[in-house]
Amino acid sequence: MCELLAMSANVPTDIVFSFTGLVERGGVTGPHVDGWGIAFYEGKGNRIFKDVSPSCDSHIAKLIKSYPIKSEVVISHIRQANSGGVSLENTHPFNRVLWGRNWTYAHNGQLTDYESKFLTHSFKPVGETDSELAFCWIIEQVANKFGEKEPLDMIPVYEYISELADRLRLHGVFNMIISDGMNLMAYCSNNLCYITRRAPFGKAKLKDTDVTIDFDKETTPNDIVTVIATRPLTTNEQWEILSAGDWCLFRLGELISFSHKATIE
Amino acid sequence: MCELLAMSANVPTDIVFSFTGLVERGGVTGPHVDGWGIAFYEGKGNRIFKDVSPSCDSHIAKLIKSYPIKSEVVISHIRQANSGGVSLENTHPFNRVLWGRNWTYAHNGQLTDYESKFLTHSFKPVGETDSELAFCWIIEQVANKFGEKEPLDMIPVYEYISELADRLRLHGVFNMIISDGMNLMAYCSNNLCYITRRAPFGKAKLKDTDVTIDFDKETTPNDIVTVIATRPLTTNEQWEILSAGDWCLFRLGELISFSHKATIE
Repeated sequence: MCELLAMSANVPTDIVFSFTGLVERGGVTGPHVDGWGIAFYEGKGNRIFKDVSPSCDSHIAKLIKSYPIKSEVVISHIRQANSGGVSLENTHPFNRVLWGRNWTYAHNGQLTDYESKFLTHSFKPVGETDSELAFCWIIEQVANKFGEKEPLDMIPVYEYISELADRLRLHGVFNMIISDGMNLMAYCSNNLCYITRRAPFGKAKLKDTDVTIDFDKETTPNDIVTVIATRPLTTNEQWEILSAGDWCLFRLGELISFSHKATIE
Repeated sequence: MCELLAMSANVPTDIVFSFTGLVERGGVTGPHVDGWGIAFYEGKGNRIFKDVSPSCDSHIAKLIKSYPIKSEVVISHIRQANSGGVSLENTHPFNRVLWGRNWTYAHNGQLTDYESKFLTHSFKPVGETDSELAFCWIIEQVANKFGEKEPLDMIPVYEYISELADRLRLHGVFNMIISDGMNLMAYCSNNLCYITRRAPFGKAKLKDTDVTIDFDKETTPNDIVTVIATRPLTTNEQWEILSAGDWCLFRLGELISFSHKATIE
């Protein structure tokens, strides 16, 4: 199992606090020692840092912790390899361009008996992971369904992605974060939760290392910041726990669309 | 004008020495203050660092100078914006995936009267630069000509890319570096040169800052390392200067194919 972390905010926000908790799970409080990655959007551009070293030892992870890159959308992943070797091309997040937008994605879980069912033609994976193949398949299905030009309304696109995720989930565990840089989707298979912080802000204490932050000192009253994670990162806050098949779509920190399927399964 | 830098080597090699010279041109000895980027391949994966700060001031450039990432193929670019604003999405190198390979590209020069002539359908640019549009157009033409699967022999692919570059060059200055992670192509419009270093190695002195390196102490006798740059980076070595329309293809540090057109123009 791997660990996912993502953020959607209405102002460029750094993720140093949450990332500090996450990297502890990469070799200190968790077993996820097979590399890690993080994507920061800045407008339509994004920057992705990846490393095959455990996140707790990584030089680049130290840079991220000490150099707060501010972003409105962030996706991060630390990996415990189960499909594909430990290499840069097998490290999340993955990125593809569709409609002139960077789509970034990370997956937690493992699929089985999927290779022959999720073939792609235009969007081929670079590495050998089930995760990247699933991403390529999603992007190709979206391109095929919605055509060459980006739809004005993106909510139907994410509804369709949730249907594709439902199909992938039939082959195993499929917790997913995906974003086009503006919208951020969280799709839950078995482990995913989120918290939306807004005024009045309080203090938060990390679960994985002895760090406390007072968000009231780090924010303005208008800030809205949602953090998504595999498991709650803090001990003194109430995280929303998603159920199998649930998905949420965030934009500028706010929940703009969601589906709760647990009751009908 | 921007500055290009690239490397092809037969062993994973760090580019700290050449990059140290290049970043001086980003705001100290050169006017290229509108951001910079560098792509390092590690196998089929790559990592791309970009920054919109001048390279001489950049925190991330300091990381690259102090943390020698070893790679067999590197592409770097420092930018003086002439088309498209100063933003992450307009910063080179650009990356697209074709045939399950990361293709990375950087361009020096400026095109005019090109927008209507180089339309793309599948590979859309994210930013507003002539450079990224030209890259997307090249990749789309290659995909259309060679189909869904990567050819076994890549030399015809690069010959075709040189023909596409010839067409782009009709619209302005088009010095280009492009790579699939294994092969590295340099296409010259007006300013591009390279040097291949192999045993016996000697000392090299940077032109842009007071740094000298003794490659004999940094290498093994079997190392072959080619460095490509807009202008020679060192003062005491003989660089090969390319002419308009010339292109070279390198693999593992060696020149494997080239075309010299200057005499027929």
